[in-house]
Amino acid sequence: MHHLVPLDNLVAALSRLPGIGRRTAERMAMALVQDRKGLMRILANALLEADESIATCERCGSITLTSKNPCELCARPRKDAQILCVVESPGDIMKIEESGGFQGRYHALMGRLSPMHGIGAADLRVDRLLQRIADENIQEVVIALGTDVESDATVSYLKEVLSTRNVRVSRIAFGLPAGSAIEYSDSATLSRAMKGRQEID
Amino acid sequence: MHHLVPLDNLVAALSRLPGIGRRTAERMAMALVQDRKGLMRILANALLEADESIATCERCGSITLTSKNPCELCARPRKDAQILCVVESPGDIMKIEESGGFQGRYHALMGRLSPMHGIGAADLRVDRLLQRIADENIQEVVIALGTDVESDATVSYLKEVLSTRNVRVSRIAFGLPAGSAIEYSDSATLSRAMKGRQEID
Repeated sequence: MHHLVPLDNLVAALSRLPGIGRRTAERMAMALVQDRKGLMRILANALLEADESIATCERCGSITLTSKNPCELCARPRKDAQILCVVESPGDIMKIEESGGFQGRYHALMGRLSPMHGIGAADLRVDRLLQRIADENIQEVVIALGTDVESDATVSYLKEVLSTRNVRVSRIAFGLPAGSAIEYSDSATLSRAMKGRQEID
Repeated sequence: MHHLVPLDNLVAALSRLPGIGRRTAERMAMALVQDRKGLMRILANALLEADESIATCERCGSITLTSKNPCELCARPRKDAQILCVVESPGDIMKIEESGGFQGRYHALMGRLSPMHGIGAADLRVDRLLQRIADENIQEVVIALGTDVESDATVSYLKEVLSTRNVRVSRIAFGLPAGSAIEYSDSATLSRAMKGRQEID
């Protein structure tokens, strides 16, 4: 009773989600096992449906339907299709797109340089980025990373790599509060930061 | 992109969990779809495992393994097996059991009287309670419900029903802060409240 292994496993799985502490995970797990025909089935089905029908866009790395790959952001005409916005993750693409402050294409690196976490340049989608710059005749790369040390290191690295290409490189303006991440920024801040971007000299 | 239906469905399912707001559900959903081979599989498997292997004890209503029904709390010897603690939900049984302040048997009503939510006496496990009092030679029923209006109404109803049986009826002491629920109480408070229970005159 005290330690039902399947219940402990469910609490452990829920605890791995961002922003979910042990106590919240326990309450969620209890609500799920007390409503197996309702809540549990709905969540299990939603997970299975998402797992089957959601894919990663092979071009930009964003979240898309399995049936639409490349995604609509890559496939549809865009006003500034020669501007490529480089972000850390698919979630960042959604945030910037929601802000309405950008009309170009996107490219998710799927991480940022982090020697402490064993993430090096080879783990980011940089080769694919260089290939897209050539294939899609990109004129400007806008780097939309946060303001922490790892982001700064990633920007420096990208700047160096891109210096050999005939492309402008800019970074979104520091309208963001220091130490924050794209993920936590509101649309207005993101939109202003996008407009105020400065070319890297 | 903006509105992937499977992603929206996942956010909706997560939002139904207790204590999870829209914003948190969105972050959880993004973390899940961005780590489908990891996080998503682990959570989906934990849910399926829990759904298969966890059952409701047919006697007390607590959470148990499908392979152990009645549950260990009902099947194993208990020091005060002639004392039956009546609670609202299986989660309450776990909370009281963790507090260590009770050595008898449990009985979950699976709700409390709530005309506003259409929950009447017939929806609670009262017939099963009366049957258990006879079958298990119960000498005392300790009602462990919260301190809100619906709990008070449920206590009044139970007191009336039980007045025809040869059994003492008590309610856990109001060591609980007013307006709180069993679910949110710490072990020390619950243990004290259990010890200070008063017979209903």
